[in-house]
Amino acid sequence: MANVRTTKLGIIGAGAVGTSLAYAALIRGAADEVAIYDINSARAEAQVLDLAHGTPFAHRTRVTGGGELGVLAASDVIVITAGAAQQPGQSRLDLVNTNAEIIRDLMPRLVKISPDAVYLLVTNPVDVLTEVAADVAGLRRGQVIGSGTTLDSSRLRWLVAETAGVAPRDVHAMILGEHGDSAFPLWSNATIGGSPIRGWADESGAKIFNDAKMAELANQAVLSAYSIIAGKGATNYAIGLAGVRLVEAILRDEHMVTPVSTVLRDYEGVDGIALSVPCVLGAGGVQRVLRVPMDSTEHEAFHRSGDAIRAVLQEIGQL
Amino acid sequence: MANVRTTKLGIIGAGAVGTSLAYAALIRGAADEVAIYDINSARAEAQVLDLAHGTPFAHRTRVTGGGELGVLAASDVIVITAGAAQQPGQSRLDLVNTNAEIIRDLMPRLVKISPDAVYLLVTNPVDVLTEVAADVAGLRRGQVIGSGTTLDSSRLRWLVAETAGVAPRDVHAMILGEHGDSAFPLWSNATIGGSPIRGWADESGAKIFNDAKMAELANQAVLSAYSIIAGKGATNYAIGLAGVRLVEAILRDEHMVTPVSTVLRDYEGVDGIALSVPCVLGAGGVQRVLRVPMDSTEHEAFHRSGDAIRAVLQEIGQL
Amino acid sequence: MANVRTTKLGIIGAGAVGTSLAYAALIRGAADEVAIYDINSARAEAQVLDLAHGTPFAHRTRVTGGGELGVLAASDVIVITAGAAQQPGQSRLDLVNTNAEIIRDLMPRLVKISPDAVYLLVTNPVDVLTEVAADVAGLRRGQVIGSGTTLDSSRLRWLVAETAGVAPRDVHAMILGEHGDSAFPLWSNATIGGSPIRGWADESGAKIFNDAKMAELANQAVLSAYSIIAGKGATNYAIGLAGVRLVEAILRDEHMVTPVSTVLRDYEGVDGIALSVPCVLGAGGVQRVLRVPMDSTEHEAFHRSGDAIRAVLQEIGQL
Amino acid sequence: MANVRTTKLGIIGAGAVGTSLAYAALIRGAADEVAIYDINSARAEAQVLDLAHGTPFAHRTRVTGGGELGVLAASDVIVITAGAAQQPGQSRLDLVNTNAEIIRDLMPRLVKISPDAVYLLVTNPVDVLTEVAADVAGLRRGQVIGSGTTLDSSRLRWLVAETAGVAPRDVHAMILGEHGDSAFPLWSNATIGGSPIRGWADESGAKIFNDAKMAELANQAVLSAYSIIAGKGATNYAIGLAGVRLVEAILRDEHMVTPVSTVLRDYEGVDGIALSVPCVLGAGGVQRVLRVPMDSTEHEAFHRSGDAIRAVLQEIGQL
Repeated sequence: MANVRTTKLGIIGAGAVGTSLAYAALIRGAADEVAIYDINSARAEAQVLDLAHGTPFAHRTRVTGGGELGVLAASDVIVITAGAAQQPGQSRLDLVNTNAEIIRDLMPRLVKISPDAVYLLVTNPVDVLTEVAADVAGLRRGQVIGSGTTLDSSRLRWLVAETAGVAPRDVHAMILGEHGDSAFPLWSNATIGGSPIRGWADESGAKIFNDAKMAELANQAVLSAYSIIAGKGATNYAIGLAGVRLVEAILRDEHMVTPVSTVLRDYEGVDGIALSVPCVLGAGGVQRVLRVPMDSTEHEAFHRSGDAIRAVLQEIGQL
Repeated sequence: MANVRTTKLGIIGAGAVGTSLAYAALIRGAADEVAIYDINSARAEAQVLDLAHGTPFAHRTRVTGGGELGVLAASDVIVITAGAAQQPGQSRLDLVNTNAEIIRDLMPRLVKISPDAVYLLVTNPVDVLTEVAADVAGLRRGQVIGSGTTLDSSRLRWLVAETAGVAPRDVHAMILGEHGDSAFPLWSNATIGGSPIRGWADESGAKIFNDAKMAELANQAVLSAYSIIAGKGATNYAIGLAGVRLVEAILRDEHMVTPVSTVLRDYEGVDGIALSVPCVLGAGGVQRVLRVPMDSTEHEAFHRSGDAIRAVLQEIGQL
Repeated sequence: MANVRTTKLGIIGAGAVGTSLAYAALIRGAADEVAIYDINSARAEAQVLDLAHGTPFAHRTRVTGGGELGVLAASDVIVITAGAAQQPGQSRLDLVNTNAEIIRDLMPRLVKISPDAVYLLVTNPVDVLTEVAADVAGLRRGQVIGSGTTLDSSRLRWLVAETAGVAPRDVHAMILGEHGDSAFPLWSNATIGGSPIRGWADESGAKIFNDAKMAELANQAVLSAYSIIAGKGATNYAIGLAGVRLVEAILRDEHMVTPVSTVLRDYEGVDGIALSVPCVLGAGGVQRVLRVPMDSTEHEAFHRSGDAIRAVLQEIGQL
Repeated sequence: MANVRTTKLGIIGAGAVGTSLAYAALIRGAADEVAIYDINSARAEAQVLDLAHGTPFAHRTRVTGGGELGVLAASDVIVITAGAAQQPGQSRLDLVNTNAEIIRDLMPRLVKISPDAVYLLVTNPVDVLTEVAADVAGLRRGQVIGSGTTLDSSRLRWLVAETAGVAPRDVHAMILGEHGDSAFPLWSNATIGGSPIRGWADESGAKIFNDAKMAELANQAVLSAYSIIAGKGATNYAIGLAGVRLVEAILRDEHMVTPVSTVLRDYEGVDGIALSVPCVLGAGGVQRVLRVPMDSTEHEAFHRSGDAIRAVLQEIGQL
């Protein structure tokens, strides 16, 4: 058989996030093969079957998987959605330790079977686990990344777009830092149709993005996950699509500019901590970490995010 | 504003099936607006938010919805996925009665706000509920349909394709009758690349689709739902994509040939019962019910399906 | 038959531009029906047949057309690509007069059969003809538009993206004014990943978009049409895709921010002249003309464009 | 940089067919890179520029090319659309000889730079040139193929679908043999919605596909190229899309069943001649040549096709 350059997306975790991501991938034809691993093999196999039955209606994606890690061998991208859920009586720190242990166990075994894959972490706390994964993997910088504030940023773009009455594609806005409570919007860099957001006016000429409005939108972007979880118990659809977009950017070498979490080297004074900043994403993962101007408020917020992650990393003995 | 011909897909039920269908619809750009109604308004709103946050990564679909039926007004297609789940101690018949009551209550209210919509039932038992819905709606024939054996047929095509080593698109195969235990494949009509399935040979010249193989594949197609349910508790992804394909065929007036459930008029001797037979699906719903030759085994199986549905319809006082 | 909301794209001119646009539309599924009119009915019918034969490989788009204007009846968008080519010995002004007469003849007949359509002019000189068409049509403002600098802007985005090593989607840059020699980039509004273009640095930290580089890219964007015409005699593919994007934005009510040509009302001091400025494009055509800050160089360039168009309009007796 | 599995489609010939195919490929995202070679480098570069300017509106496809054959190095599929056009006074045979010489010159140079590519010939007479190319290339069987009757078959499916009132996807019909005057439909294998075409009835119950109707449709399918050429001078759009579908089937390893031209080994008694018969197309090209039952009329027609190609091959000294 000739040289076949098919692409393989591996997914760890057959829960709602992993399978929503797999579903979006097969509907979009993002990869030629989608393989799903779950420690619960019955669940993995049932998800594979349910997804595979949908393929006649979509692109010809091969859906495979099961309870053996080997199903992910020779993947081009591996998305990690696995992780324990908080148990009653378990502290947040215990949970972090549990998930960090899962990552420390998984990564070396994954690197052995897919050494050239890009690793995309989605499990929370995503910045902490990205650092743990990068450390234990020993791969190229840029090859281990976290979804970070990709989805928060997309939510913000959507909210700004709805407010301004334009398409989300015509809004540029990013949320940076920790994927968590210390995340902050880089308003100084936000534009609508190329114009700074603060200058945007409605048809009457009134500027509609004042401090109060912007604070409200940022809050909604960061906190909406909580209201979704309150209403349906989890978030899965938007993160599935956000994850697939990152996967596509990698597999198609798109050079997409997007915030993702990577271990930073002297970035605005933060060093050795994984946080989301704008990166160029393409073949091989993060191809370039972009420097963006921050005003003093943003610089401070960025350091607060760095401190928050550093504290957790120290607590779990990672730093 | 000028004459805007945007399309609206309404969905009843914000559970796994309804929202997987909504997710597939927005990823594919199947409709300009997707509206979701659920009696649990908090759940509906959380699902709407989670789905809407994914739209910046996909086509520009407006996602709306909530706990008021009015959110579905002026839909072009309404997919009904709502229905009670079987309660401990509840008989199967009680469940049918419960769901029939839900449909009898919903349909007149829906017809009032979306009189031109095509109604697609997905809730089980789908053939029984299609009949109930058609009866209470009082709309054109072809305007109220059930997903019926669409997905079973697709599973069969996929299984045959995997066995033959060809793409599912190049296999024609249908499962007809009841969406349930009495469903049967119309093998006399099944082809691979246009050739009758029984004549298909592998590269060594051996005929691989003998009676045993065909019985095995038919069983797998009809029973795989059970193994999926055993492994993950429900099926949602494949039915979501199958439903969206039917919606697309209607909204784009595709004249797609596919089995769907409709109330039949003197079809192979079955009359006044909703069962799946091949139909031409396009604008307005079923545009034509196709007559296909059945051999004597198939004819008998079809009547068994008809009898099974008739018995339930009589039990719930519908006939 | 139920209320069928299919969409119809009408195209005037079965030449390379019109049919490339039709081809792109059917591959993307941009409209349910694509109708092509050409005064040369044999050519129109041959193009329709060639395009229709491609539809089994793409979305189910109905391709129709011929030599009678009535084929465009009830269109949602009508794209006008028709126009005489410059004859040997013919002055540029004679050519403008010829094409203006074609538009003055066509528009009232089109408005009669498609009163709700949005009219998109592609024929050159596009700004002059947009003004002529808008004047004779007597429709709503925003309903008659010209493709203007849409494609020039896209070329600039592509050039900036190649230079910066990022995806074109992550570059915001627009060329405004006349679609012609006086077009100019609105550099003050250009961003890469949300950051002002002048601040963009390569990995060594060197700023790469200096005045010389920016002038070179702007020249390439505006002049590349000439080199394409020198090499292949015409441009058709990129303008076909650019046109389809505008059509999609209208048919799907996308609220897309893009420069298109419309008759301006007191815009930076220009009044009653059709020029390209950023607009919100959606159902009904231009929904809003956006005011963007211009620096003094840009303001002057804008006035030069206005003067250039005004001069031609006066020459042909339109003003 | 990590292992990047991007796909590359090479195209020989920057004329209407080659560039329509390139345009369709970039709109569909069929390959990550599309490279166009033409002996006329100015034309190649102009087409590349025009196509590249369209990419910001579509998938991120890199469009490259020029007048050096090396631009096609490391392609996964190479489509050959190059060939001389018939000159006044030139005999048909002289033309065949000219194009055969072009192929004999090109193939060894191509195989040197892209030894693993699948070669797809589109230039006419396609069956003759497929044989010449396969012979001189010395590659695996199945690696050198001709588009053959792919497009004729698609035209027939479209015509049958229009007549029956169903979607082309639901019609299975193939034209086999020579891509030329001796091509013939394999009616014994044609189905609509899985049912034999002869049994198909309209809503009144009348069988509409009688011998006269079928002969008329077959004629239209084979001869419509002539009427398109009469009206517009060439065919390019449908063949562009048909070619891209074949390319996609190869790049995505689709196992698509489709007629393509390959050098046959003892097929219905024809040996060592390239003709179109149904094949399974996927990674590496033709993965399997399918045996299909032919009735005696079809068997005779197939031999007439074989004789026609054999005669030309002998005339040009290939056999």
